[in-house]
Amino acid sequence: MSKIMSREAGSRFAGKNIVIIGGGTGTSTLLQGLKKYPVDLSVIVSTADDGGSTGILRKELGVIPPGDIRQCLLALSDVPKEVKELFNFRFSSGKLKGHNAGNIILAALEKISGIEEGVSLASKMLNVRGQVLPVSLTPTTLSAILQNGKKIVGEHFIDDRKPIGKASPIKNLRLSAAKANPRALKALGEADAIVFGPGDLYTSVLPSLLVSGINGAINRSKAKKLLVTNIMTKFGQTDGFKASDFVTETEAYLKGKIDYVLANNKKPSQEILRKYVKEKAEFVETDINALAKTKAETIALNLLSDSIIKKTAGDSLKRSWLRHDSEKLAKIIWELIS
Amino acid sequence: MSKIMSREAGSRFAGKNIVIIGGGTGTSTLLQGLKKYPVDLSVIVSTADDGGSTGILRKELGVIPPGDIRQCLLALSDVPKEVKELFNFRFSSGKLKGHNAGNIILAALEKISGIEEGVSLASKMLNVRGQVLPVSLTPTTLSAILQNGKKIVGEHFIDDRKPIGKASPIKNLRLSAAKANPRALKALGEADAIVFGPGDLYTSVLPSLLVSGINGAINRSKAKKLLVTNIMTKFGQTDGFKASDFVTETEAYLKGKIDYVLANNKKPSQEILRKYVKEKAEFVETDINALAKTKAETIALNLLSDSIIKKTAGDSLKRSWLRHDSEKLAKIIWELIS
Repeated sequence: MSKIMSREAGSRFAGKNIVIIGGGTGTSTLLQGLKKYPVDLSVIVSTADDGGSTGILRKELGVIPPGDIRQCLLALSDVPKEVKELFNFRFSSGKLKGHNAGNIILAALEKISGIEEGVSLASKMLNVRGQVLPVSLTPTTLSAILQNGKKIVGEHFIDDRKPIGKASPIKNLRLSAAKANPRALKALGEADAIVFGPGDLYTSVLPSLLVSGINGAINRSKAKKLLVTNIMTKFGQTDGFKASDFVTETEAYLKGKIDYVLANNKKPSQEILRKYVKEKAEFVETDINALAKTKAETIALNLLSDSIIKKTAGDSLKRSWLRHDSEKLAKIIWELIS
Repeated sequence: MSKIMSREAGSRFAGKNIVIIGGGTGTSTLLQGLKKYPVDLSVIVSTADDGGSTGILRKELGVIPPGDIRQCLLALSDVPKEVKELFNFRFSSGKLKGHNAGNIILAALEKISGIEEGVSLASKMLNVRGQVLPVSLTPTTLSAILQNGKKIVGEHFIDDRKPIGKASPIKNLRLSAAKANPRALKALGEADAIVFGPGDLYTSVLPSLLVSGINGAINRSKAKKLLVTNIMTKFGQTDGFKASDFVTETEAYLKGKIDYVLANNKKPSQEILRKYVKEKAEFVETDINALAKTKAETIALNLLSDSIIKKTAGDSLKRSWLRHDSEKLAKIIWELIS
C-alpha cells in the first residue's frame, strides 16, 4: 500500500500536509502538538549526525544516523509505554554502554531491508501516524567554516563546542554531496505548510537545506513557510542571535523566503536563565524592528511551556531546561493553514 | 489478564496443556509442529547458557541468557517475516559484531521491566501463542564433573568440547543454586504432557531438572512424560549413547519415570553421516531390548525430516544438518494425549 493510498484511506479531515524540517528535541516537541490535529505529518530529518550512540552505529555499521529518526518516530507513535521505553532505553554497562536500544533496532532494520523499508517497519512497530524521512538515503558529513578561518568537520563537533571564551561564529556550513530522498521531495511538493525548527539551527535545521534538491523543492512548493525561532541561543552556533537573525540565516541557506515567523516573546525567569549561564546561552529577543525589515509576517507571543525539563544524568543527548509549549505552537500553525 | 483467563478466553478446543523442557534448536523444531494443534504450549528454558552473544549480555548486563528464550518465542510467533528477521539479525561489524538484535531487545526489556514482564512484552511484540518460561528468575551456572575427575565450569565449555580424541564422559552435572520460576511450577502442575527434548541432553534438557523444585513438580504432575531422543550423539556429551541411555540418564536426573520414548529409527544416508564424522557424532540407535528394560513405552519410527539444514557461516549457534520432522513428532504427541 503506497503512502498516498494510506493517506486517503485514513483521512477523515481536510488532509492538510505539514512537513517539518528538523530532527532533534525541538522537532519532537512540535510533533507532540501537531499530531493532535487532523493533518498529515512528514518530518525531514538531517542525516549528518555523527555523535554518541548514533555516531558509533553510523561509523561501525554504515547506517543512516538513527537517533533523530528514532526520536521523531517516538513523537508520532501510539504504543504502550513499555514499547516506547524499549526504544528509549540506554544501556549503562558492558560494550553496549551508551547505546540506545531503539537506535540498535533501527540499525538492524536498515541492515536487513535498507533504510526506507527499515524506517517503514519501525513505523509499523511503533504505530506511527505520519512519516519520518531521512533527508538523504546515505549518511552525510557536515562541516563549518568559522569566521576566524578554522574549519570544524563533523556534526557533533559543531554541536558540542565547549562554552569557553567567545566562539568564532559560523561563516559557512557545508555538507558532503548527497542526493535528496525522493520521498522527501515528494512530501515537500505536496505540502501545505513547511515548518523550520525549533531546533539547533546549524546542526538540525540548516543541514537538510544543503542536500541537493531540497532547496528547490521547498521554493517551488506552494506551501506556507513557517519558521519557529528558538527560545535560547546556543553557544558556538547562534550566539547573540535575535529572532530576525534566525530568519535571515535560514533564508540565506534556503535561497528563498520565509512567510511567517513564530517567535516566543516571554522571557524565562531569572532563575532559569541562570541555569543557562554556564552554557553561555541567552534568551532570544524578538527584535520587532529588524523582523519588520524581513518580508516574513511576525507572530510573537508567549510560547514557553510551563513545565521545566529535568536533565537526566548519563543522557548523551543535550537537553534544554526550556521547551516550547507544543499545544500553543501547534494551534498557531493549524490556524495559519486552515 | 492472567494466564488462566487468557487460556479460557482463547480456548476453542480441549485445551490440553503441553510443557516442553528444552530450549535450543530441537525445541524450536518441536514447537513449530505442536503449535498447529489446539494445545496450550509452555516451554521451560534453561538459564545456564553462557556462550556467544547471550553469554556476553548475561555477563555484562546481568540478564537471564536471552538466546534460547528468543528462539522459542520466534518458534511460537506469528508476525511478518521482517519482524522475525529483526529478532534473528546478527551484527557483523563493529562493537556489536556477533550480537543478535533479538537478544539485545530481550536484554533491554529485562533491564526495563524485569525478566517476567520483559518476556511477556516480547511475546506481545512477536504475537506469541503460548508461553516461554525461564526455569529460574536468576541466571544459573552449569558444571560437569567428568569421569576422569576433571571439572568443566560453564555451559558453553560443556557444549563446545573440541572433538579431539575420546571425551571423558560426564559423570555428574551440577547447577548453581536457583529457585524455580513459580510460573514454571504452575505450568508443570497443570500439564497434560511434559516433553523432554529433543536437544543437547546435558546443556539444554537436564540443567532445568537441577533447579530446585522442578523435579518434584514434574514427578507430582499427572502429566504423561515423553522423551524425544536425539537423532545423533554429541561429542563430549552423549558419545556412544543409544536411545535407552537417554531414558536412563534423564530418569536419573529426574528421579522419576518417563512414560513414553519417541525414538527415530531411520538411519540417515551415509552421505549425511559423513558430514558428522568431523564432529565425532554418530547415529543414535534404537536399542529395543535395552529400551524394553525401562518402564517407558517405546514408539520407534522414522522421525527424520526430509529437508537437510544448511549451516550458516558466522552463525554462532551450533546447528545440525539433521532435524526431526516437526509434523510427525507433533502428530504422535497429540495422539498420545488425546
